[in-house]
Amino acid sequence: MSAPLDAKPATGQWLGEDILSVEQFGVDSAKRVLRVADEMKAIVKSQGSTDILKGKLLANIFYEPSTRTSCSFQAAMLRLGGVVVPVNESSSSVKKGETLSDTIKCMECYSDVIVLRHPVKGSAAIAAGATKKPVLNAGDGVGEHPTQALLDLYTIYNELGTSDLQGKVVTMVGDLKNGRTVHSLSKLLALFGVSINYVAPESLKMPRYIYDELAARGVKQHETTDLESVINESDVLYVTRVQKERFESEAEYDAVKDSFCITLSTIANAKQSLVIMHPLPRVGEIAEEVDNDPRAAYFRQMENGMYVRMALLALVLGKA
Amino acid sequence: MSAPLDAKPATGQWLGEDILSVEQFGVDSAKRVLRVADEMKAIVKSQGSTDILKGKLLANIFYEPSTRTSCSFQAAMLRLGGVVVPVNESSSSVKKGETLSDTIKCMECYSDVIVLRHPVKGSAAIAAGATKKPVLNAGDGVGEHPTQALLDLYTIYNELGTSDLQGKVVTMVGDLKNGRTVHSLSKLLALFGVSINYVAPESLKMPRYIYDELAARGVKQHETTDLESVINESDVLYVTRVQKERFESEAEYDAVKDSFCITLSTIANAKQSLVIMHPLPRVGEIAEEVDNDPRAAYFRQMENGMYVRMALLALVLGKA
Amino acid sequence: MSAPLDAKPATGQWLGEDILSVEQFGVDSAKRVLRVADEMKAIVKSQGSTDILKGKLLANIFYEPSTRTSCSFQAAMLRLGGVVVPVNESSSSVKKGETLSDTIKCMECYSDVIVLRHPVKGSAAIAAGATKKPVLNAGDGVGEHPTQALLDLYTIYNELGTSDLQGKVVTMVGDLKNGRTVHSLSKLLALFGVSINYVAPESLKMPRYIYDELAARGVKQHETTDLESVINESDVLYVTRVQKERFESEAEYDAVKDSFCITLSTIANAKQSLVIMHPLPRVGEIAEEVDNDPRAAYFRQMENGMYVRMALLALVLGKA
Repeated sequence: MSAPLDAKPATGQWLGEDILSVEQFGVDSAKRVLRVADEMKAIVKSQGSTDILKGKLLANIFYEPSTRTSCSFQAAMLRLGGVVVPVNESSSSVKKGETLSDTIKCMECYSDVIVLRHPVKGSAAIAAGATKKPVLNAGDGVGEHPTQALLDLYTIYNELGTSDLQGKVVTMVGDLKNGRTVHSLSKLLALFGVSINYVAPESLKMPRYIYDELAARGVKQHETTDLESVINESDVLYVTRVQKERFESEAEYDAVKDSFCITLSTIANAKQSLVIMHPLPRVGEIAEEVDNDPRAAYFRQMENGMYVRMALLALVLGKA
Repeated sequence: MSAPLDAKPATGQWLGEDILSVEQFGVDSAKRVLRVADEMKAIVKSQGSTDILKGKLLANIFYEPSTRTSCSFQAAMLRLGGVVVPVNESSSSVKKGETLSDTIKCMECYSDVIVLRHPVKGSAAIAAGATKKPVLNAGDGVGEHPTQALLDLYTIYNELGTSDLQGKVVTMVGDLKNGRTVHSLSKLLALFGVSINYVAPESLKMPRYIYDELAARGVKQHETTDLESVINESDVLYVTRVQKERFESEAEYDAVKDSFCITLSTIANAKQSLVIMHPLPRVGEIAEEVDNDPRAAYFRQMENGMYVRMALLALVLGKA
Repeated sequence: MSAPLDAKPATGQWLGEDILSVEQFGVDSAKRVLRVADEMKAIVKSQGSTDILKGKLLANIFYEPSTRTSCSFQAAMLRLGGVVVPVNESSSSVKKGETLSDTIKCMECYSDVIVLRHPVKGSAAIAAGATKKPVLNAGDGVGEHPTQALLDLYTIYNELGTSDLQGKVVTMVGDLKNGRTVHSLSKLLALFGVSINYVAPESLKMPRYIYDELAARGVKQHETTDLESVINESDVLYVTRVQKERFESEAEYDAVKDSFCITLSTIANAKQSLVIMHPLPRVGEIAEEVDNDPRAAYFRQMENGMYVRMALLALVLGKA
């Protein structure tokens, strides 16, 4: 079930809970994930792995390829001492006309926890409804990708080295219309008192319903097409992938693409404490010259994904 | 080798034996698999996994996709403490013109036991002839699928809660001509004194050679096109997938398909102890409304597959 | 880095070293790999696996299918007690336009060691440059395949039962122009005082630059199109795959193919101690009748691959 997790006792386990949406998280439950992720990081850094999920089996079901997310979950489970059975679209019985519910009901026979990536919005909820085993949503089309939002939050806290995000400025840049990542992250950030700048061309603006929802929750938001006007006040620069095929014409793409390419000159006058993030893969949105700048956090962000997923797996299996 | 297993000492191991066909099994050896499967189920229920196959490696070779069977074997090996190297058609050297024997001789260099799924009948025997390591047939085209038949038998015993199937009535319904599963299961059931009803349209009847073989072995069999006439006497209802493409015309398919769709009304007057089974995936042969009926055993049947495969892996590796 | 390994202390670890090319190896470092491979073989034969890489994770990245090499590395890692996350071309983010460097930088976040197979020469070096984690080259196009050359060397030592190859005669036959395997092996053998015969049709001769390099290093080499003239003096017969598509016409292929097919009559008068090798898969270059001859070493060669890869994984992770 997609239960609100703040309602759970702060010290108890989340045994059997599904993680389907960022909307399940309040301040307490989000911070709990971050604390457990910190413990996981310490375990990996000191000994590589642990045995707390020994005897547990993850069915890692990917109906569309996503190397990073799939590998991150696999590595997370293996470093916890559990085992993984991977299921990919190409090997699935979907071709035989089976429903998603049936596939999940079969996989739950073998497994203790299910991770699902699916191209159709709402699939994770359908899966969760079909099984009593915990389901972790690893992205369902234009729907949610809650573990990405949580690892982003973890990275922001870690990189800023603070326990309080009140008043911090997060600037999101790129395709904010189609970027599931920034939608989930915005909602999660709304819990913590940050201000958000949205930098996007008119055709790729943050959807109105998200803007309005956050406004109603009192989040300070600002929309612009001009990154330069907001870069210097930013504590976090969150860059997203701009997909050429989202534009109506190549001309339209060419007209705006440069304003989305972060170079060393883009950040020349930005804060020294700026945190540059990207959900990856990138295709030119951040120049490689930026990689060696200490503010480039995107590969650490990737690594954090493993710790956050370890935390979630341990929590829903009652072993955190 | 495809050795008759009843000849093996009842208490000894089946170390190194291949499992290629249900015809290897007599009453003693089949019951032995069921007993060990019970032990495996107890292990999984109490602690998730064991270490009895620590140090053992399974080469899980699938030349055609079969999510369930592949995952079931992987989960079985992992829960026994062994490890798995999966080999799929797409990644195989078959494209380079290599013979199956050579592929198997290579995989045996890395592994302790081999599971093979192959579209061509007789492939499992060829594989077994190429290696001294035990080979488990996970389905070879229109040939055999012995682990499916054994898990079906295990499910029938478990669901009926009996140690004696003498006089029980098993009704098989659907495409009995092309259903490898029902062919293997019929032969196995013939050992245990059950009566079998075959419900199929004329064009999809159980093959004559199987009917004749079982008749010669004294099995009571009855063929009909009318499920209603036999449902009330049935202890087990074994439903198989009806593939549209097996029919000569869409009209022919439409004419019979409804008689193969099990609904709550189909079983309204059936025994309360009826066991409804299906090898899955289903595509409409059993309505979803049946899932919540306690007589619906098909997902428990799926789970049993893991215990039976754990039993077989442990037996042929001498660790049961 | 592609560091020369003889420079490392003979007793120290190679912690963090990349294995990219046979050219990194001198006599001492090559022999060290063989010694550790012997230890690995003893472990596998006595107990199946060990725990020395417990807590370590291998990212096994294959941009082109290669069942044998992939399975060999997976089995090696698993038998060392480590875990594996497989990444295949089909599931990779390459489609999304990501650079190889970025893919590697992501995978290093989850893993302790990276194995890379890639169709483009030089890819392994690019990968190694992108990460501080050790990278093992599992074949980069027409470039190198150092673990194959090392397992070939290990097989030659083991089969001949000698600690000194001085004066031994290795005869290579087949497509020596395109066979990456024989290129790497020739360079490695040059360290140990062997003589090499090259048997190939004019159009598929060993490349001149390799011949010249070895000549400059004092290796005794002999080129011929006539296997019969050199078979009797050979200690090792190294057969390579002849790919029809390498020939300009089918007629040209037909004209030479028989001289590349090893049968029992080919080796009738060869030494009783002859070692027949092939990197596999074979497509007719060695008749199946040869398989039962004790001189047929190609499947043992395959098995040795696992021990050599276990040795390399243990060495670069500092656990040999």
